[in-house]
Amino acid sequence: MTLTGHSLIAGETVAGTNGTASGISPATNQPLEPAYTLLAEDQLAAATAAAAEAFDSFRNLDPETHARFLEAIAENIDAIGDELIERACAETGLGEARLRGERARTTGQLRLFAALVRQGDFRGARIDPALPERTPLPRVDIRLRQIPIGPVAVFGASNFPLAFSVAGGDTASALAAGCPVVVKAHNAHPGTAELVGQAVTGAVRTLGLHPGVFSLVYGAGTSIGQALVADPAIKAVGFTGSRGGGLALMRTAAARPEPIPVYAEMSSINPVYVLPGALSEPDALAGQFVTSLTGSSGQLCTAPGLVFVPFGEDGDRFVEAVGRAVAHQPGQTMLTPGIAAAWEQGSTALGAAADVELVGRGQAGPTENAPAPAVFGTDVDAFAGNAVLHEEIFGAASLIVRYKGAEDLVEATRRLEGQLTASLFAEAEDHALAASLIPALELKVGRIILNGWPTGVEVGHAMVHGGPFPATSDPRTTSVGTLAIHRFLRPVSYQNVPQDLLPEPLQDSNPWHLTRLVDGRTELPG
Amino acid sequence: MTLTGHSLIAGETVAGTNGTASGISPATNQPLEPAYTLLAEDQLAAATAAAAEAFDSFRNLDPETHARFLEAIAENIDAIGDELIERACAETGLGEARLRGERARTTGQLRLFAALVRQGDFRGARIDPALPERTPLPRVDIRLRQIPIGPVAVFGASNFPLAFSVAGGDTASALAAGCPVVVKAHNAHPGTAELVGQAVTGAVRTLGLHPGVFSLVYGAGTSIGQALVADPAIKAVGFTGSRGGGLALMRTAAARPEPIPVYAEMSSINPVYVLPGALSEPDALAGQFVTSLTGSSGQLCTAPGLVFVPFGEDGDRFVEAVGRAVAHQPGQTMLTPGIAAAWEQGSTALGAAADVELVGRGQAGPTENAPAPAVFGTDVDAFAGNAVLHEEIFGAASLIVRYKGAEDLVEATRRLEGQLTASLFAEAEDHALAASLIPALELKVGRIILNGWPTGVEVGHAMVHGGPFPATSDPRTTSVGTLAIHRFLRPVSYQNVPQDLLPEPLQDSNPWHLTRLVDGRTELPG
Repeated sequence: MTLTGHSLIAGETVAGTNGTASGISPATNQPLEPAYTLLAEDQLAAATAAAAEAFDSFRNLDPETHARFLEAIAENIDAIGDELIERACAETGLGEARLRGERARTTGQLRLFAALVRQGDFRGARIDPALPERTPLPRVDIRLRQIPIGPVAVFGASNFPLAFSVAGGDTASALAAGCPVVVKAHNAHPGTAELVGQAVTGAVRTLGLHPGVFSLVYGAGTSIGQALVADPAIKAVGFTGSRGGGLALMRTAAARPEPIPVYAEMSSINPVYVLPGALSEPDALAGQFVTSLTGSSGQLCTAPGLVFVPFGEDGDRFVEAVGRAVAHQPGQTMLTPGIAAAWEQGSTALGAAADVELVGRGQAGPTENAPAPAVFGTDVDAFAGNAVLHEEIFGAASLIVRYKGAEDLVEATRRLEGQLTASLFAEAEDHALAASLIPALELKVGRIILNGWPTGVEVGHAMVHGGPFPATSDPRTTSVGTLAIHRFLRPVSYQNVPQDLLPEPLQDSNPWHLTRLVDGRTELPG
Repeated sequence: MTLTGHSLIAGETVAGTNGTASGISPATNQPLEPAYTLLAEDQLAAATAAAAEAFDSFRNLDPETHARFLEAIAENIDAIGDELIERACAETGLGEARLRGERARTTGQLRLFAALVRQGDFRGARIDPALPERTPLPRVDIRLRQIPIGPVAVFGASNFPLAFSVAGGDTASALAAGCPVVVKAHNAHPGTAELVGQAVTGAVRTLGLHPGVFSLVYGAGTSIGQALVADPAIKAVGFTGSRGGGLALMRTAAARPEPIPVYAEMSSINPVYVLPGALSEPDALAGQFVTSLTGSSGQLCTAPGLVFVPFGEDGDRFVEAVGRAVAHQPGQTMLTPGIAAAWEQGSTALGAAADVELVGRGQAGPTENAPAPAVFGTDVDAFAGNAVLHEEIFGAASLIVRYKGAEDLVEATRRLEGQLTASLFAEAEDHALAASLIPALELKVGRIILNGWPTGVEVGHAMVHGGPFPATSDPRTTSVGTLAIHRFLRPVSYQNVPQDLLPEPLQDSNPWHLTRLVDGRTELPG
């Protein structure tokens, strides 16, 4: 595929008038061709106006065409072949195996949402039949369905150039809901973004949809993103990135004449609780930890940045094993020079904090921007007293916190900010302690894991990739899995509306074969 | 029951230290006994801290006790008897029949939520079973349930002293979700609020719940409400009231270190579209309109403030009939002197607007604060050009807008702000026009009604009392009906968690007999 170096607005290539920016190979710090033209703010309205114009036809698409559109995007992404993997490797420094896996996740989640669209139950149909004999007043027929909220702005994430970028989870769930999408490309992987953007545009064309269903825009710094969120045509925002970036978008969205929801997935240190009975094989557990921490150079939202380990000999053996395991780890190229510099700064500050010591450090990698992974250690008292120890360090750095007993863990949990995940390593003898921790963790996290590391997020029906602030801006949702479609829906009631004016999901004949709530009871389709 | 004139905090009567305020009889402008002491901001923490303390036990209540608690509130409200109706009449000026109906709605919705709690499907259980043989990676068992979001602040509405106040819809849905509630009493009906607050407190005591599950606080002006929303223990807000009041709470909630959702139901003019074929019985339709408009002195969120009527003889006959019907209407006491004054101001401004004429006016009522209902008229061109004509006038005033054809209606709809409802009066010959309007209305309103007036909100499973901003702060929800429980829930995943550590809704044996989504398929309980 030929990279044009321009934005893709409603099926057209549009050259920006606000200068250019190039992707950088983080392994070499060299710029990559082509340079991308950046849109001026006044060029953005072409994308948002087209999205608004496309909304009515897109939201009323028949389920089969709608599902085939999502499948066509997946097929087109697969059809790009090695060029996509090579470009993403060059732009992000991520390894080929990781990126092939990420591509499979990306196309898999598009196909999962296609199946959801065909099945249709997310439309949430409810029917309260008329009760003409009811006293003192009869009830008229009332029916409800969920409709899409409107055009959605999606911000590509630096650390998932495929699965959380142009056709990633936010885009897939918004398109599945029936919302046109305007993606702000992440400037760290502009070529990868364009390749995927062409795949989506191709699917729009193949299915004969209104071209405004999808646009991909490039812009300088944060200004174009802020303008996008402020645009009246945009009705919701999906974002994965830094806390500062997410908070800025939340402020803009709240200050609009019509405030809109922002689904920002921001920061998390993903506490891991190693309970006393789980230390029988310290080397194996330490090896798993270091693998989870250092994969993708630690640049995962779910990387284990905090590990609670009991005081005592078993705990000592585990910590020593971690030290040995991390020492063998070479640094891997990080996503950008800026991210690598921020990691250096954060891990240096952590290592220099009072009562924090180095547990182990690997070796710097052979490329640019490949710092040595590092694990630090402290105890619960120091952890409780120093907010620096609670901050996310994006990359392969983690803090082991030693504890005495259950009370330490409950108290430390109480002090945690909101998180995406918490992991408990526990054997049968630890279940009483685990049972006392789980209620506290439910209030702090979106996902509780037993005897597993937090990295590796399954894309399914029961996944929550979310959690209380500041892990996300909105704990009522998830950004991974089919439940994510509900972020982009809103309910509408139809009262006393005759069959010929009712939308299909609510007609008596149930032509879409939906599971519906009839008078409060779930009815499966016949 | 004895009115104490004080706040009820976690089961205790607490005298406020920030002065007093009395309810006023709007029929006489005379103060009502007793005066209510107002809390200082530093007294509020007793309520919010108790709510936070009560949360863990309340959210883990067994469904039967939880349901009986909601039923006990309903029973206690009924047990107050005529004293409640008399006090509410005195404080609000609303008629006895209306208040008896409102009480039935209030206890009915508490019992409906009790049934929902017993049935339990709102817990949204999802199970993705382990797939140990899956390649390239096995899947571990992942399960999801919805848990309550935390303590909720509820603001009593002036116009529903029972159904949207202390134990109204917001409180019922929050308590049903498992959230403790702190209610800010509306100062226009402090005695009614206390009577109901005692009913809730009694139910907390009867069921042996933590007393922090419920508090009722009185405070001066808006400051105590702002402090309540800013309190870190509060995790969501329910509000029904003015646009200015709702926006102020939204700003406070967004500016917190941890932003929280605000569900504010604010303003709506509820457009009614009389299509050409629906004018065969102009007198009957006009009579219905005036009844809908003037009931409760027009002080309903769903009052028909805007009616589109075709030009031509049939339309003329309808407008004339409206003029005759409204002329017979006496003014009814409005809720407060302030609300009556604001109505006078708003209706005077509407009557004085360019190209607006009076269609008809009733007579002033015999009490204080009982202005004559008024209906005005204009045409779509004037309506399009003057924002004043789009503003809600809380009370019995409405504007008839004459139109030529379908294009006028589509264009006028496009210019509307978000609304709670839209009504279409249409006969078979109008269905093509209705079909072209409904998609436009879906994007502007929460409920579409055929051949019915918007007032009279059914409390059921399929009701949406909500809609796009500024009708509400959040179009993704409803404040009436069972779907409202989802405002106060958030999802949590449990990954690889053994049976003995799983919450009941997710255990294999399905002890609560819930409908669950298993591997993406809805499974009814056996």
